[in-house]
Amino acid sequence: MVDKVNLAQKFTLFDDRWSPRIVGELNDLHIKIAKIEGEFIWHQHEDTDELFLVTDGTLHMHLRDKTIEVGPGEIIVIPAGVEHKPEAQGVCQIVMFERKGTLNTGEHADSERTKSELEWI
Amino acid sequence: MVDKVNLAQKFTLFDDRWSPRIVGELNDLHIKIAKIEGEFIWHQHEDTDELFLVTDGTLHMHLRDKTIEVGPGEIIVIPAGVEHKPEAQGVCQIVMFERKGTLNTGEHADSERTKSELEWI
Repeated sequence: MVDKVNLAQKFTLFDDRWSPRIVGELNDLHIKIAKIEGEFIWHQHEDTDELFLVTDGTLHMHLRDKTIEVGPGEIIVIPAGVEHKPEAQGVCQIVMFERKGTLNTGEHADSERTKSELEWI
Repeated sequence: MVDKVNLAQKFTLFDDRWSPRIVGELNDLHIKIAKIEGEFIWHQHEDTDELFLVTDGTLHMHLRDKTIEVGPGEIIVIPAGVEHKPEAQGVCQIVMFERKGTLNTGEHADSERTKSELEWI
């Protein structure tokens, strides 16, 4: 059944940090949302680009050679194989597009930060 | 080179309607933006789902059995093979994700509404 997704409404359904939920799919991609705060770990995704769209707050996307500040209404695409470390001071709401099955921690599949069973909301 | 894209800034770069521009790519997808106003034509995309994110205005997405109003901060995914007709009363700004090479008019490749050579902005 085709229906729309209201992102702001979906963000009201949970409050834990660094725990992506799935809100949709597009071909072989999942559309996920997450609330992030503080620092994540350095990682990369070998097999898929990863898109971040910020809807609230500021995402500091650390790359090995620079840091890019991404605010509401801005997107950033991290190409496959590029190391990155997301960080947010205060809560930041993000929408992510990445291939189904992609682990949030990339090559660190056994990290304590890994979320492998994602819930649809 | 990895960099961010500010959607609002990109929308200031053109003003014609129903003429998508490419602002990014993610695996085999293009990320496009467009200003739409009035009615488009019924069409479908056989080989790719298509995602619409509204950033300003209201998109009336007509399906054969219903119409869904999509406003700012809302997304809708049209599955491959599903007929749809976008419409907007007043200007509406949309972001689209679809497979590279997808024609805006779907199976109507020779329509006067078809835009086949899209510009990167």
